[in-house]
Amino acid sequence: MFIVRVEHDAELMSFIANLANQYHITSAAFAAIGALKSAKLGFYNQLTHEYMEDLLVTPQEVASCTGNVSFKDGTPFVHAHAVLSDQNGSTRGGHLIEGKVFAAEVQLFELLGDKVERKKDDVTGLSLWDI
Amino acid sequence: MFIVRVEHDAELMSFIANLANQYHITSAAFAAIGALKSAKLGFYNQLTHEYMEDLLVTPQEVASCTGNVSFKDGTPFVHAHAVLSDQNGSTRGGHLIEGKVFAAEVQLFELLGDKVERKKDDVTGLSLWDI
Amino acid sequence: MFIVRVEHDAELMSFIANLANQYHITSAAFAAIGALKSAKLGFYNQLTHEYMEDLLVTPQEVASCTGNVSFKDGTPFVHAHAVLSDQNGSTRGGHLIEGKVFAAEVQLFELLGDKVERKKDDVTGLSLWDI
Repeated sequence: MFIVRVEHDAELMSFIANLANQYHITSAAFAAIGALKSAKLGFYNQLTHEYMEDLLVTPQEVASCTGNVSFKDGTPFVHAHAVLSDQNGSTRGGHLIEGKVFAAEVQLFELLGDKVERKKDDVTGLSLWDI
Repeated sequence: MFIVRVEHDAELMSFIANLANQYHITSAAFAAIGALKSAKLGFYNQLTHEYMEDLLVTPQEVASCTGNVSFKDGTPFVHAHAVLSDQNGSTRGGHLIEGKVFAAEVQLFELLGDKVERKKDDVTGLSLWDI
Repeated sequence: MFIVRVEHDAELMSFIANLANQYHITSAAFAAIGALKSAKLGFYNQLTHEYMEDLLVTPQEVASCTGNVSFKDGTPFVHAHAVLSDQNGSTRGGHLIEGKVFAAEVQLFELLGDKVERKKDDVTGLSLWDI
């Protein structure tokens, strides 16, 4: 396990994927706190199997962010959900599609063992672990 | 530590309790992300010592879910809090009583050492660890 | 890693800092769930580099709380973000400045390795890890 400071202006999801690539991490769980300059959240429509997106263009605190790293189509894939709060403390939550970092701290636990691979699941329309 | 995909239509709290039973896990910490078809949240009234309940019958993203497994009355007991968000990103949070899984991923850290047991605490009216 | 029950009426941030001091923990990641009697949240203004504060004087569920312990000015420094929910399930989130505990459970992972030190960062105005 290690903790990492994310660079100012980095995109959070790409930063974690690059970290996994750089350290040859195939499977991990992580959490992050900090602040974003802007973010995009997604909400999955369980009937139509499509993501609705919500672009937040104002500064946000990362009140919570939890996720994991696994493999999809041969490369590290980052899946994270987050609760963001604006300057009044009002919160929005969902699937974190992207976040432009003001400042962020990530705690990442590498998982040893077999590589975990995502495959398309017909019931949900999502890419799920084949386990 | 391991990560697990929860079955579609499973009840999240029971799924984790069953996992603990199956692998003889007496103490653990976990986090989960995913989506629920429906959920029940609880809010503890600190004066009357009663839970108020809120049934959410629409699909919810599990924006955050953190909890632990310990023992209560001789069996694994799952305690979790969650922040859920609806299709508009609006959030509600509290004690997670139950959640019907659309898709979910759990990261669970087993704790080795003495079994942690919950006992009734008179000051709060809750079942707390006897430590 | 260990899990700890926080004492009734303790202040959550000080409790974790004291725990780190007592067990000579210089670096750690943690999560907490529970309920607070009152709390103070902060939201960082990314332009003026000042915290705005929000005092919550009613009971709150700790729907989520994630943080870390590192060093600042030679002593253990606790940094945590949280999502709190009131008796109606309405949530507020941000930087957790303080929280008076009704009941709380903390899971803490000690990080071994070099001591992580915070230093003032000119770009953000925050005390960030020097890594």
